[in-house]
Order: sequence, then structure tokens, then C-alpha cells
Amino acid sequence: MLDRAVSMNISVLLKAADTPETAQDCRRRHIMEAAERCFARSGFHKTSMQEICAEAAMSPGALYRYFKSKEAIIEAICLDERQRCHGTLEPLLVEGDFTEAFVDMAMAYFEQMRRPGATPMMLEVFAEGLRNGAVGRNFLENEAMVREHISDFVKRAADRGDIDATVDHDAAIGMMMALGEGIVMRSAIDPALEPERIRAMLAAMIDAVFGRGKRR
Amino acid sequence: MLDRAVSMNISVLLKAADTPETAQDCRRRHIMEAAERCFARSGFHKTSMQEICAEAAMSPGALYRYFKSKEAIIEAICLDERQRCHGTLEPLLVEGDFTEAFVDMAMAYFEQMRRPGATPMMLEVFAEGLRNGAVGRNFLENEAMVREHISDFVKRAADRGDIDATVDHDAAIGMMMALGEGIVMRSAIDPALEPERIRAMLAAMIDAVFGRGKRR
Repeated sequence: MLDRAVSMNISVLLKAADTPETAQDCRRRHIMEAAERCFARSGFHKTSMQEICAEAAMSPGALYRYFKSKEAIIEAICLDERQRCHGTLEPLLVEGDFTEAFVDMAMAYFEQMRRPGATPMMLEVFAEGLRNGAVGRNFLENEAMVREHISDFVKRAADRGDIDATVDHDAAIGMMMALGEGIVMRSAIDPALEPERIRAMLAAMIDAVFGRGKRR
Repeated sequence: MLDRAVSMNISVLLKAADTPETAQDCRRRHIMEAAERCFARSGFHKTSMQEICAEAAMSPGALYRYFKSKEAIIEAICLDERQRCHGTLEPLLVEGDFTEAFVDMAMAYFEQMRRPGATPMMLEVFAEGLRNGAVGRNFLENEAMVREHISDFVKRAADRGDIDATVDHDAAIGMMMALGEGIVMRSAIDPALEPERIRAMLAAMIDAVFGRGKRR
């Protein structure tokens, strides 16, 4: 039952991401990308709507037709991120090797976070998660949803006997999410974290954390 | 030769941290803590000197005697962080079990990052590392120095035959630093990452990444 719920949830989000883009969507995306560049330069709090207008090369009147406030732009970017993020959870739905599926998901997530502006945006949003605002709550909800999907995936693997059922699953999932977020952050400053250099290590770490047999 | 260089470097920093605090130091620290709370609330860019004065309950005249600018306060906080950070590298100097030393260092780092304001500050500083300013450069230098200390520690262990010499050490160190930074970030929002719940997992992950025998 959980499987189906997870699967439906993700496919709805994937479907939303696949819908063809209208001229209006395109314009919105143009503004969101301009805003992301501004946020990367000077953070959410300091960026003004005027700066976003300048970066998007649009008049305030034109821009306000799409977004009423900076907060509305941030919200739209976060929703977008959320859809992309859920897309990367797809490998968890395939019945197959636990570690392979986990690694595939992580790699899809890293790939998605390589687009310019994604990492600074993630840091901003994470910082907001530690504060008490709408953006922070949105982020924490998304984190909780991702964690739930991974948790279901882990439970199914434990039920099948694929992983050690006695392992502290919550802590193990927390460690893997910490590793994933840490890799995204560091990739921007650490050239050693190229996908092909870390793939096998990631698999070995997953095996270690979930009490699977040593693979090397 | 490397050992001695690392050892001296760290002991100089530890000595600096041990020096008894004067009344002036105490006042500076009071201002720095007030500034950290402001940065946690609204970020480096938006925080003004007036806000820091209000938070520290000091007049601008009094505060300016200690710090000429917001940038000078940030720099002082970063230097402080740097000294604390180097203190946590001490376990790497003890000749003993590779994984135990690594875990002890990580745990000391997590402990140090538990003080209020440390995680929001780390996110701000990391975001600055992706930008092109003085704070960012300072942060990147510190990262490079920590990496060098860990790298020396890994080289010595490889020379002794304690870890697999054929492992991609740079990628392995990058993975461990990513994990450490990710744990610090997530600890603020994920109660499963308590020290006692993750210690054994961390050890298993280090063993896996550095090609050491399975310990469970």
C-alpha cells in the first residue's frame, strides 16, 4: 500500500514536470532564473525586486504580472526544486538491488544540483530552514517528504531481507541525506568529488551503513 | 617532516586559543556573539552595524572602538572558528587506530558546531565561499588547510599499511569532509543524528571508504 502511495505521489509530480511549457511558463522560468542568479550573488534577504527586474531585463510592471513579490518568486523556485527533487527519487521505485537503486538516486540528485545557481540556492534555503519563515517551513516539509520516500524504500528492503533489519534506520537515512547534501555543497569547491570518482565509494558507504556484505 | 609541520601548526593555534582572556577580549567576544545571532536571523548581507549595536546593547561609538566594520567582525568570527576547527584536528596527531582517530576528530568537530549560531554561520560562510569576496577566500583557505592536515594523516596511515594505499585518497577525503559538513547542517533539523547513534556508523563508513576490514 505504501508502495502505491509513494509511486502515485512521484508520478503526479513527474507528470507535472513533463507538461509542455506555455509562453507564460517560459517567461516565469526566465524570471526565476534571473532571481536565482541574484540570490546566488547576494542572498535572499538583500536582493530587491528592482535587482531581479534589472537581471531579467524587464520593467517592474511586466515582472509584477508574473510575480507579486520576491517571496512569490522564491516559493515558485522552491516548488520547481521540489518537483525536480522528486524526479530523482524514481530509482527507488524499481525493484532491484538496494545499493544500486540508492546510488542511482544519489547520482540523479547530484546531476540535478549541478545546474548553475542550484547550490547557492540550496544553502540559502537550508539557512531559511533554520529560521522561522515560510521558505524555511516549505523546505522542512520537502525534507520530511523526501525522508519518508527513502524510509519506505528502506523498510521494503528490510522486509525483503536485503539489508540488516537491526540497523538504526532513521540514523542511517539521516547519515545518507547528510552525505548527499554535503556532497552537493562541497562539489562546488572540491574537484575530487566528480561522479565517476565517488560512485563506488558511495556504494561501499551505503553497504556499510545498512549492514550489507562487503563488496570489494 | 610533514608530521612535525602539522603538529607545530596545530599547537601554535591551540596555544593562541588557551591564552587567558583580557577585559578587551571579553568585550570583543560579546560583540562577536551578538553579531552571530544577527547573522543567524537575517544573513551577513542584510545585517547592519546598527542591528549589531542593538543586539550587543552598545552604542555605535563603543562598538566601533572594537570593530571598524561589519566585515571586521565577520573576519574575527572566522578566525575564531578557524582556531576552534584546528583544535578538533588534534586527534589526528596521536599515533593509534586510523578509524578511531578519524571518528574522534569528527565527534570533536560536531561537538564544537553545536554551540548556538554555529550552523547558520557555517551556511553563510559556505555561501560566501561560492562568491568572490574576502570572507569566501578566507573560508576556502581554511578548508584547504584542514584538507591538508587530513591528507597528511591519511598518507601516514597508508605508509604504515593501515589503510588501502590504492584507494583514491583525494576523493575519499572529499567524501568524509562532505559527510562531516552534511552532518553539521542536518543535525540542526534531524534528531536522528545524535552523536551516540551515529558513532559506529561513521566508523563503518570510514572503514568502507578507506578500504579497511569490515568491523561488524
